[in-house]
Amino acid sequence: MTPDAFPVVGIVGAGQLARMMVQAAIPLGISVRVLAEHPDDSAALVCPHVDIGMPNNARHLREFAARCDVVTLDHELVYLDALAEIEAGGGVVRPNAATLRYAKDKFYQRTEFRRAGLPVPDFAELLNFPAIEEFAARHGWPVVVKTQQGGYDGRGVWVLEDEDEARDFFDATAGTGVDLMLEQHVRIDRELAVLVARRPGGESVTYPVVETVQRDGICHEVIAPAPVAIEIAERARALGERIAELTGAVGIIATELFVAGDELLINEVATRPHNSGHFSIDGCATSQFANHLRAVLDWPLGPADLVAPVVVMANLLGEDRASLAPRMRGALDAGPRGVHPHLYGKDVRPGRKIGHVTALGDDLEETRARAVHAAAVLTGRAT
Amino acid sequence: MTPDAFPVVGIVGAGQLARMMVQAAIPLGISVRVLAEHPDDSAALVCPHVDIGMPNNARHLREFAARCDVVTLDHELVYLDALAEIEAGGGVVRPNAATLRYAKDKFYQRTEFRRAGLPVPDFAELLNFPAIEEFAARHGWPVVVKTQQGGYDGRGVWVLEDEDEARDFFDATAGTGVDLMLEQHVRIDRELAVLVARRPGGESVTYPVVETVQRDGICHEVIAPAPVAIEIAERARALGERIAELTGAVGIIATELFVAGDELLINEVATRPHNSGHFSIDGCATSQFANHLRAVLDWPLGPADLVAPVVVMANLLGEDRASLAPRMRGALDAGPRGVHPHLYGKDVRPGRKIGHVTALGDDLEETRARAVHAAAVLTGRAT
Repeated sequence: MTPDAFPVVGIVGAGQLARMMVQAAIPLGISVRVLAEHPDDSAALVCPHVDIGMPNNARHLREFAARCDVVTLDHELVYLDALAEIEAGGGVVRPNAATLRYAKDKFYQRTEFRRAGLPVPDFAELLNFPAIEEFAARHGWPVVVKTQQGGYDGRGVWVLEDEDEARDFFDATAGTGVDLMLEQHVRIDRELAVLVARRPGGESVTYPVVETVQRDGICHEVIAPAPVAIEIAERARALGERIAELTGAVGIIATELFVAGDELLINEVATRPHNSGHFSIDGCATSQFANHLRAVLDWPLGPADLVAPVVVMANLLGEDRASLAPRMRGALDAGPRGVHPHLYGKDVRPGRKIGHVTALGDDLEETRARAVHAAAVLTGRAT
Repeated sequence: MTPDAFPVVGIVGAGQLARMMVQAAIPLGISVRVLAEHPDDSAALVCPHVDIGMPNNARHLREFAARCDVVTLDHELVYLDALAEIEAGGGVVRPNAATLRYAKDKFYQRTEFRRAGLPVPDFAELLNFPAIEEFAARHGWPVVVKTQQGGYDGRGVWVLEDEDEARDFFDATAGTGVDLMLEQHVRIDRELAVLVARRPGGESVTYPVVETVQRDGICHEVIAPAPVAIEIAERARALGERIAELTGAVGIIATELFVAGDELLINEVATRPHNSGHFSIDGCATSQFANHLRAVLDWPLGPADLVAPVVVMANLLGEDRASLAPRMRGALDAGPRGVHPHLYGKDVRPGRKIGHVTALGDDLEETRARAVHAAAVLTGRAT
């Protein structure tokens, strides 16, 4: 506790999610401390309390936790056993290691969700080459292969189109020691996401179900509310809430869903604020970052209602290495409804998420065009 | 310029206005540096780039300005000649010393506004005792006395009820060297405020006219939009915009107005973000702090539209010296529409502005009650 008895929230990792938590913490009077790998990490640039350390180093985590009242996370790629030890020693880690495992280990996640009767694509461990052949015999080609841990934004995912590709892939990866899993290739009509903020005692708030527009496994746009039938949105919402309970989530938990015909299938969960919820900073009564902080402190949650009929977020994916600064005037010159840029302070690299733009409006097409255009101006694809 | 060519905005003063600018700067990718008197000033607690120095010290200002691309201000109580010298030397100060003088020197402000034909209460310099008698003969008692510079929140203002009080006051203040002015006592029906954000070239955005509810010269609540006839609101808006032009404002300029019968009279101007605009953080498409930063950087401004039919802000005025932290749970437990607390990280002292709470709603009475109740819980006057 700080001298004025406001809690210190420590965030492991200092990416853009931590940066947006730092911003959300200011009005709440909370002190935030970040564990950054580098002093110029996104959140470290805007936070006065920065410790340098690695999220997979038990000593760094332990020393960091000792300076905080509550530890939370920017990403799941942390050393879970060390977090479990911190908890065992009386530290408060939210979400805890048991919840984080669902996000870190996709094979565990799929196994547990299937056991609980939740709809997941069929899957199997990739233990040997015949496992691929058997899986293809059951589901046909293509077959999806994923790393059990560590993939994100389309990395760690491969689509094997036939047995030849499967053989080449197997030969190339055998012996690397990376745990892989097979997954049914789903013909996706669209993708949805649902965010739930949950307190330790179970009180929760659910954000409007959104559509995520993905290209090459990377989220490009988020549309709130998702332009789907109410019945689909309600099933998505119910799945998100059930997963929040099942995983014992504290803070934000994001569930990504495939819509395939009449089916909803669980794609991924993230046990932290999520790209599909960035629209909530400008677009909801309470942002996902504010509610994440409130939840990990066991404070009452704020409403997640939209403040406009339509909210669209467009990610800024780096195109060149030029600075965004000279493009800000052009991007902000967005007409009477305006746009809300959010820059992460990162060096621009091709394909890297360096920010996002949110637009509020009444009409989906106009609002989407406004957000997408401002994002294109910022990344140099339009003027 | 920082290595990535994003500008560094320097803020002279590190109070709550600077703190809320620090928050608004994060998504815009702007680096903010504050000139704080103490390391535990409100904005210094949340800003990684803090210089310690005094706003009335020419050397401190000069050294600070050398580290910034644009200098702006948390308050007007700065050494204007030093700012003018920084400008003369090629530094960028926004608003500049010429504009700041309107806010710092009330006698100058009244004189210039009257010369421009703007409606101000009658006033005169308090040079000697007969000046009070003459002024009372013209306007009757009571007579208002103000310091020409430096007053705020009801400080530096006296109401003299009769000649005896005037004599006592004159005897007590004569020879103190403080420049005073006399002002007509206006029977105020209500008070309004209008905020304009203005770029160097004159492009501007005007916020909805608000009512400020004052007690003992201190703003307790702000109601947006002001519950007044449209014709009154439009005149208020036009006055605010004319004053923004006249003063050459850059950034936010706030005009406080008295409503007295059918008359609108100018009370004060502030050439910076203002307490009457705090509702805009949660209540408008673009907050006054974001638009202040955009304006001083000569970036296009964002829309100032309300995001809810009614927005009410209640100030947190310290009641006791207890910490606010244990009261956060109670304050946030505010029902389905919620409340937005903004804490300034200041030690609680009786009467001190230590934060504010904003509520969004559909109904004025319900929204106001919600904001006021949460503020009462935080200050310990309610549970």
